[in-house]
Amino acid sequence: MDFFEHGGRHGGANITYDFSANINPLGMPDAAAQVLQKEWKRAEGYPEETSRTLRRAIALQWQAEEEQLVCTNGASELIYAVVRALRPAAGLIASPSFSEYERALLAADCPVKCYPLQRENGFQPEEGLLAFLEQQPSGSLLFLCNPNNPVGNCMDPKLWERVLRLTARKKIWLAADETFLPFCREYENISMKRFYKDYGNLLIINAFTKLYAMPGLRLGYGICADREVIRQIRRQLPAWNVSVPAQLAGLAALQEEGYQERTIEYLEKERVRLIEGLQKRDKLIYRIYPSRANFIFFEAEPGLDGRLSEKGFAIRSCENYRRLGPGDFRIAVRTREENEALLKALDALEKEG
Amino acid sequence: MDFFEHGGRHGGANITYDFSANINPLGMPDAAAQVLQKEWKRAEGYPEETSRTLRRAIALQWQAEEEQLVCTNGASELIYAVVRALRPAAGLIASPSFSEYERALLAADCPVKCYPLQRENGFQPEEGLLAFLEQQPSGSLLFLCNPNNPVGNCMDPKLWERVLRLTARKKIWLAADETFLPFCREYENISMKRFYKDYGNLLIINAFTKLYAMPGLRLGYGICADREVIRQIRRQLPAWNVSVPAQLAGLAALQEEGYQERTIEYLEKERVRLIEGLQKRDKLIYRIYPSRANFIFFEAEPGLDGRLSEKGFAIRSCENYRRLGPGDFRIAVRTREENEALLKALDALEKEG
Repeated sequence: MDFFEHGGRHGGANITYDFSANINPLGMPDAAAQVLQKEWKRAEGYPEETSRTLRRAIALQWQAEEEQLVCTNGASELIYAVVRALRPAAGLIASPSFSEYERALLAADCPVKCYPLQRENGFQPEEGLLAFLEQQPSGSLLFLCNPNNPVGNCMDPKLWERVLRLTARKKIWLAADETFLPFCREYENISMKRFYKDYGNLLIINAFTKLYAMPGLRLGYGICADREVIRQIRRQLPAWNVSVPAQLAGLAALQEEGYQERTIEYLEKERVRLIEGLQKRDKLIYRIYPSRANFIFFEAEPGLDGRLSEKGFAIRSCENYRRLGPGDFRIAVRTREENEALLKALDALEKEG
Repeated sequence: MDFFEHGGRHGGANITYDFSANINPLGMPDAAAQVLQKEWKRAEGYPEETSRTLRRAIALQWQAEEEQLVCTNGASELIYAVVRALRPAAGLIASPSFSEYERALLAADCPVKCYPLQRENGFQPEEGLLAFLEQQPSGSLLFLCNPNNPVGNCMDPKLWERVLRLTARKKIWLAADETFLPFCREYENISMKRFYKDYGNLLIINAFTKLYAMPGLRLGYGICADREVIRQIRRQLPAWNVSVPAQLAGLAALQEEGYQERTIEYLEKERVRLIEGLQKRDKLIYRIYPSRANFIFFEAEPGLDGRLSEKGFAIRSCENYRRLGPGDFRIAVRTREENEALLKALDALEKEG
């Protein structure tokens, strides 16, 4: 099976190092790995139809009610279900961002309006976003990804609050995709978690995929204070939508103490080292964007992905994102050894000229 | 985790024997079980986005093209995606049948029309179905489940052919759900597989769930000769919709020689024994319907499910199906030992009176 297909740009190359997927370099928590090996036989039975045990465990973490939670087959399934449940007047996206928002909106024949983030400002959302939102009809649905994928930047928390209040006033739905936020040390101060109980128009999207390094299991979830929104999302989902391995591994991962803290510590160190290393390879890499996530976005020589793939490295070309083009790339922060190997490969390419 | 929740009727009882889920009593093929245990680490990577390797393996079996195939997170996900892709003028269901058809149609605001199957005829589809279809608008979507769930009967193959020709002529979409057909010895003579290459309005739904005893992994698929139909279905599905464990186990299961044949042999013997056993418990069980599937539908004393659950047995009450009511039950054909245990439990209940 070609596990690099999701990046979509690696052709038939023989890939040893995958920097194209944004997965926790520490790998799956031990407890999750063990449950997969030991409890495989439970896949001979049906999963819980609506992942109730898992919802309860997540709800505990959030001090929420299980009826305010929905578990999905990856965050992607949730994005499609939200669009179908809310039937928005329009889908609003600050571009560039995760491509599934637009795909989900188009699949439901929902018109898409993009707020263009500016390259010269590092694709950082600014006041203009508020003016853009003022012009949108009530019943629209805004997707905001924080940290944003593929750029890796976080929106200013003050601006977030203003967006939240504005959308509530204008009755615009706000889907805050925080799947990469658990990698931030400031999670509790940045997450919309602080506000969700007071804003029924706010849905927070999160996932186990990234933090717990289990993208192959597919496990996302959504939280909204308004139980009716969750009920309507649930209505759009097939029965048994989350598999037994995903439910079991998710439950186990939640019980692993200190895993998130260890991840953040490792990541912060390695991200700094990797960025410093990339800065030194300035013949190939022209501009590196600040990152709060477990990945780094940069501008480089177009075709760098192809040259690296010949050396066994997959990186993510971002040219198929709106507002991005050839020469825009994203790499995950991997283990120390893998990052070093990538830097050495870049050295070799620089020498080749 | 409560693995019996899907039947929905077992409350908090302590269940030892699950007859409520229609799973192959032989359990998962060895090759699939092994791949789950050995290859768990591959869940740290993304699955193939559109299950291409698996689609190719299934396509080989069907002598189809991979573009005529779509793999889904269980057959349920496919049912929802078909409805959204085809946007039928109406959804047509021969009731009673699998409840997800109606749920998927209603979730998409599609009107539902039911052709009522008659209890006095054993809920067998008859000529009246053709007259019913003649009155439906083109662009409708007919779901037909064969063998039908929860009754277990197969439609007359001659009638099937007439339905197929009629729907093609009237431009009605026909979704043939054959998830239980691999349990039939006559599979090749009954399956719509014989016709799909000549009928672009025909979509065949199948799954690994039932035959390969892996409902916890969620793996279904659809086949249609018309590539554009498959493309439209795919458009309604989130990326990476089939997990790594499901793709790996599915591939492994296809390689297990003789598994389907062994299953059919075991099942035919045990089904006869179990039906004979039920016939003898005629104080509790009033009418047993002929079955071509791996489950048995019968009429019995209402409340039998509750009484059995106190003894540790889960059976499926069918009262929440359209046209069925209290006293309608479905049980899976399980292993010899489990079936014997159920018959003994029924003896005990008969004695209790």
